[in-house]
Amino acid sequence: MITKKEQKVIRSLGVKKNRKALGQFVAEGEKTVSTFLAAGHTPDAIYGVIPHKSLPCTLIEPQEMERISHLKNPSNILAVFPTPESKKCPNNGRILVLDNVSDPGNLGTIIRLCHWFGIQHIVCSPNSVDCYNPKVVQATMGSLAMVNCHYLALTTFLQTTSLPIYGTFLSGASIYQIDLPKDAVIVFGNEAHGISSGVEKVITHKITIPRRGTDGPESLNIATAAAIVMGTLMR
Amino acid sequence: MITKKEQKVIRSLGVKKNRKALGQFVAEGEKTVSTFLAAGHTPDAIYGVIPHKSLPCTLIEPQEMERISHLKNPSNILAVFPTPESKKCPNNGRILVLDNVSDPGNLGTIIRLCHWFGIQHIVCSPNSVDCYNPKVVQATMGSLAMVNCHYLALTTFLQTTSLPIYGTFLSGASIYQIDLPKDAVIVFGNEAHGISSGVEKVITHKITIPRRGTDGPESLNIATAAAIVMGTLMR
Repeated sequence: MITKKEQKVIRSLGVKKNRKALGQFVAEGEKTVSTFLAAGHTPDAIYGVIPHKSLPCTLIEPQEMERISHLKNPSNILAVFPTPESKKCPNNGRILVLDNVSDPGNLGTIIRLCHWFGIQHIVCSPNSVDCYNPKVVQATMGSLAMVNCHYLALTTFLQTTSLPIYGTFLSGASIYQIDLPKDAVIVFGNEAHGISSGVEKVITHKITIPRRGTDGPESLNIATAAAIVMGTLMR
Repeated sequence: MITKKEQKVIRSLGVKKNRKALGQFVAEGEKTVSTFLAAGHTPDAIYGVIPHKSLPCTLIEPQEMERISHLKNPSNILAVFPTPESKKCPNNGRILVLDNVSDPGNLGTIIRLCHWFGIQHIVCSPNSVDCYNPKVVQATMGSLAMVNCHYLALTTFLQTTSLPIYGTFLSGASIYQIDLPKDAVIVFGNEAHGISSGVEKVITHKITIPRRGTDGPESLNIATAAAIVMGTLMR
């Protein structure tokens, strides 16, 4: 049983402004919801269309789930969590920086990759897609519960860090020739425009994925490029 | 100017059965269309909402483009090409095998990756998504013009090849410890179920992407995994 008002609130969480005002976000699917629970997040509400052994939830009708779900194909469980308070970004370890990544699927994939490779902190430019966007949460498959996303002015952050700053470009030193230090920042740019000129100025190491042959594509998708760079530098 | 009948035919090319019956497929966007033209494909028709210097096209109205486009956000150019005759798959070089990859975006990303890394042949199981699906064509950004996709019964193909067969699993030899021969087959499995048991039996080398730490995600997206494996083995 879910009231019309509750339905409306959950639908409204598809929009960043409302997530910010209410301090809540939506997670859907058994895997995603249980990962947030396991990571210590206490839900404000969990709704399910069938009873779940390990996930106590308010039972609702499939049509109600369709109304509150932000997915094309609703799963059978949806939870509302309070947005965690943002932690301070450390000045050591390996930190990923995203300069205006706009596609929710790409950010989600990159968060999942960070989780896989043990990177705990991502710094996003304020104009990047919000990590609590339902499509991002979905694409992370729960990994968002394990990786911290910070939204900071990038040039200020990068100018004040003492870490070496690696930036990915279409030309630069081959990723296969680089020994990434244990403490370092790696910057990826926007899907269409790459790293912005302001951020480019503070990059200390320009790196690239060498292309085979001369007739290859001009570029790779940002999430694919991130996978190759992380898979190589964090082996 | 485009007739209602032509519009209907182009819309129908969203379905595999119709593509097969008509021997045609749709490519959209300047980059994709011009890559197919540069690769020597002769279009049956090109439609544009604005005149293109390098791409002679039949001018149509934006509303007509919306009707014939298979994209959420139609571009300003769409071409219909005859489906190329399938070539024979060679028995040397590096060949990628996809066992029931079902997501069009994943296949498109993998085709683009193959183009980047100089792999010219992909063998897909017959139940894999069709490479001429408009969403696949779009995701390849033209790379489909440069990479051959063969649809073959995998066990037969793999049993008859003399090449070593590397298969990606959740456990196996680390990709970082492997020297991939110049002639080899690499197999990736379905998004949810991995490599099928029939195909698994003919794999000669099981390989894996080692995971950092113990609390990482259980798996990676297939396109992301392919990016890491190819980026590491084809450096």
